[in-house]
Amino acid sequence: MEEKTRNDSTALVRPRVYLGPGIALGPGKVDLLRKVGECGSISAAGRALGIPYKRAWLLIDTLNTGFGRPLVETATGGKGGGGAVLTSLGQQVVACYEALERRLNAEASTELAALRALLEPPEKK
Amino acid sequence: MEEKTRNDSTALVRPRVYLGPGIALGPGKVDLLRKVGECGSISAAGRALGIPYKRAWLLIDTLNTGFGRPLVETATGGKGGGGAVLTSLGQQVVACYEALERRLNAEASTELAALRALLEPPEKK
Repeated sequence: MEEKTRNDSTALVRPRVYLGPGIALGPGKVDLLRKVGECGSISAAGRALGIPYKRAWLLIDTLNTGFGRPLVETATGGKGGGGAVLTSLGQQVVACYEALERRLNAEASTELAALRALLEPPEKK
Repeated sequence: MEEKTRNDSTALVRPRVYLGPGIALGPGKVDLLRKVGECGSISAAGRALGIPYKRAWLLIDTLNTGFGRPLVETATGGKGGGGAVLTSLGQQVVACYEALERRLNAEASTELAALRALLEPPEKK
């Protein structure tokens, strides 16, 4: 996930937040939560993001443990498992992360411009 | 590197910056650059951070290619290779990233507090 980039030419900051010992929240986990909410399934969300099922499951388990309450709940049974839903807490975590992300992108334009200025212009290569 | 956390109890934001197509800069790459500067060697920096040499080398190659000029220069020859140094550009990239990081942590306290409030207090578990 580290190497993913944006296709547009706008610099964009995505935060990794260290909330405490054992619990960090970054773009990978948030995208996964959002996709689980859309797909209603951990395996489908993993497939959509190119994450192996086991890793997707582990990321969610880490979140559920770290927050002390589930962000994703799974139902067992049925063909191919019983699906998964974002809990109210999971939805709040995604919403708070998005608010943080918006804020950071709005506030950091000077520092982002300084960083981008170090890139050699592609046209002049 | 995704799972690394802080040991202190203060929430901390570390940015991943999407500078353009094919070039992203996040905590992993910046820590590696900083460590190469300290150690004077890619392999020693990788060891210090628990990153395999090949991955460390690839991360730096990605940066050098993405920025269009080297952030790290290596000298060949000698036992175990001839070491590595941060170029002036490499030093500037680290400094700009650190400025961005300071700014984000200063500006995002409200949103960080909202996110932390969703964590169950460890004492009440």
